[in-house]
Amino acid sequence: MIQYVSVDNIIRLIHDRGIESLITDIANAIEDDFIRWEEFDKQPRIPAHSDRGVIELMPTSDFDTYGFKYVNGHPLNHELGKQTVTGFGVLADMESGYPFFLCEMTILTALRTAAMSALVAKHLARDDSAIMAMIGTGCQAEFQAYAFKALLGIKHLRIYDTDPAAMDKFEKNMESHGFTIERCTDTFEAVKRADIITTCTADKKQAKILTENMIGQGVHINAIGGDAPGKTELEKSILMKSDIFVEYPDQTWIEGEIQQLDKDHPMTEIWRVFDGQTEGRTSKGQITIFDSVGFAIEDFSALRVIQTLTEDNDFSEDINLLALPDNPKNLFGMI
Amino acid sequence: MIQYVSVDNIIRLIHDRGIESLITDIANAIEDDFIRWEEFDKQPRIPAHSDRGVIELMPTSDFDTYGFKYVNGHPLNHELGKQTVTGFGVLADMESGYPFFLCEMTILTALRTAAMSALVAKHLARDDSAIMAMIGTGCQAEFQAYAFKALLGIKHLRIYDTDPAAMDKFEKNMESHGFTIERCTDTFEAVKRADIITTCTADKKQAKILTENMIGQGVHINAIGGDAPGKTELEKSILMKSDIFVEYPDQTWIEGEIQQLDKDHPMTEIWRVFDGQTEGRTSKGQITIFDSVGFAIEDFSALRVIQTLTEDNDFSEDINLLALPDNPKNLFGMI
Repeated sequence: MIQYVSVDNIIRLIHDRGIESLITDIANAIEDDFIRWEEFDKQPRIPAHSDRGVIELMPTSDFDTYGFKYVNGHPLNHELGKQTVTGFGVLADMESGYPFFLCEMTILTALRTAAMSALVAKHLARDDSAIMAMIGTGCQAEFQAYAFKALLGIKHLRIYDTDPAAMDKFEKNMESHGFTIERCTDTFEAVKRADIITTCTADKKQAKILTENMIGQGVHINAIGGDAPGKTELEKSILMKSDIFVEYPDQTWIEGEIQQLDKDHPMTEIWRVFDGQTEGRTSKGQITIFDSVGFAIEDFSALRVIQTLTEDNDFSEDINLLALPDNPKNLFGMI
Repeated sequence: MIQYVSVDNIIRLIHDRGIESLITDIANAIEDDFIRWEEFDKQPRIPAHSDRGVIELMPTSDFDTYGFKYVNGHPLNHELGKQTVTGFGVLADMESGYPFFLCEMTILTALRTAAMSALVAKHLARDDSAIMAMIGTGCQAEFQAYAFKALLGIKHLRIYDTDPAAMDKFEKNMESHGFTIERCTDTFEAVKRADIITTCTADKKQAKILTENMIGQGVHINAIGGDAPGKTELEKSILMKSDIFVEYPDQTWIEGEIQQLDKDHPMTEIWRVFDGQTEGRTSKGQITIFDSVGFAIEDFSALRVIQTLTEDNDFSEDINLLALPDNPKNLFGMI
C-alpha cells in the first residue's frame, strides 16, 4: 500500500496546521536540503513541449529517498477555464525502488514555491524590508503573501495585475488577515517605495514586466514568472546592474531570466548562501535578484514534510497502486 | 478527478477479459503505435541508479496524449522478499497538461513486455515455430508463455532456471492450461530443438546465459533480460552471427545486448518491420535476435488499452489527485 494525500486532505492539513506554519515547515526543510546540496543527484527537469504548454518530470534523490514531481505549465489554460499549473508528486525508497508516497502537488507546488521565495528573500532582502510590490496576482500570489509574512514579517503589499478581476480576487482572499493592501494602477506605481518586488505573471513570452527605470537601489527582486524557454519578465539591463542568485544553473540557463545573458555572466548558487560559504546581500544599495524557476529538491523537501505530517493519521489514505505478491518471484500467482 | 486502476482492478480485468485476449489487445495497440513511430516524441528513459538497482521514468507522447511510467529494477530485492520490478503509469492530455489516468504497472509491465516479445516473434520467428525454450522462469515467464500461445500458437515449452523453486512455481502456475512443459537440467538441454529461445534472467552483470555453441540455424532469440548498463545475457559471438532487431537504438545502445558491439554494427529498428518497409526474417536458416529492453511507447500503448477498457465501468475508481478550482485563477480560494 502507498500513503496517498488527496486534494481534500492537503486542504484539511493546511487548515489544521495553519498556512504560515506549514510554509515555515517547508522553508526549513528546503533550507536543510539545500545545505546538503552536494549529496543530491541533480538534473534539469525533463520537458514535453506542445503548442499550448509543457509537461515536466522533475526527479531528484539523495540516494536514500527518490522523489519526482509531474507538473504542467499551460498559460492558455485559463481560456478553457482550466488551471495553468497542476501536479502531483511521488517519493520512493532507493534501496528497494518501491514508491511509498503519492501526493497532490497543485496546491503543494504553490506552497513550496512561496516557501522558497521567502526563504531566499530572508537571506537577500534588506533586514529593514517592510513593503512588497506584487506584480501579478494570479494563483501564486496569496501563497507568496503568506510566506513573506511568515518568514519576513512583511504585511504591507502594493499589488498590480493587468486583470482587475485578479486583484479583486486577491483582495477578497486576503482581507481580514492582517495585511495592508494597496491596489495600484500600474506596475510603475506598485513598485514605488517597495523593498521587495515579486513578479509572477504567466505570459509565455519574453516580456518586460519590470524595466530598469522602475528599480531603485537596495531592492530585492523575487522573479518567479520567468520559468520557461522564451518566457522572461525582466528587462536585460536590470540583470546587468544586479547580483543574481539561482537554484540550479544548468536548469536556470534554460528557463530563467538569465536566458538573456552571456553564459559567462556571474551568478551565485543560492545553496552557497544558505550554507554560509558565500555572502548574500553585502550592502544596503545592492540590487539582488532571485531568478527562480523551481527545482526538484524543493519538491522533494515539500513532499517529505507532507509525508511526515500525514503518516499514520487520517490526513492520508492507503491506495493499492503496487502489486506485491507474497512470493516476489511469483507475480503471476496474484492472477 | 483522475481515473485510477488499482492492482485489484487490473487483476479483475485480466480475469474478465482473459489473459490471452488482453495480451492480444495490447500487442495490437503496440503494433499500431509503432507503425506511427515517427509521430512520437521519444527519448531514452531517465534513470536514477543506486548500489542496489535503478529507478526510471519513461515518458513519451504523440503530441496529443502524454504518458509516462515509473518503474524500478532491483535485482537483489528478492533477498528482502521484495519484487525486482514494480511500477505505475500515467496518461495526460497534452492540450491542457492535465493527467487523466493513473494505473498500476507492475502487472501491466509484465503483460506489455510479453505482448511486445510475442508481437516481434510473430514477425521474426519461422512460421513453423512450435517449441520455445525459456531460460529463466521468474516473474515474467508465465506472461511470456501466454503471449506466445496467444499470438503464435506456441504450446510446447522447454524450461530451465538455476533456481528449482522458480521452475516448480512455473509448472504449478501453468499446469492444466494447455501447455506441454519439459523441465530441463541446464540451458544447453533446454535450447535443444527449440525454434524460439526466450532469455529472461535477472542478474545485474554481464552474463553468458547463451553461448554460441547452443544456437542452431533458424532460431529466433527473444532476449529480454539484458536491459541495463552492464547487464547482458548473450555471448558476443552470437550477436556477430545474427540479425539484430531493436526498439529504440538510442536506448538499446545503453541497455541492451548491443552494449557489447561497435557502434557501427548493423541493426534494424523493429517499427520498420511492423510497418513493412523492412523485411524481418528473410531465410529459414537466419538467426534473429530481438534485443529487448522495453520502450516508453509500449507502456503508452498498454496504458491506453487499459484506460479504454476501464472507462466508465467499475474496473476503475475516481481519485482526487488534481486540485481544480472553479475559478482557475483562484487556487487559493480552494483553501
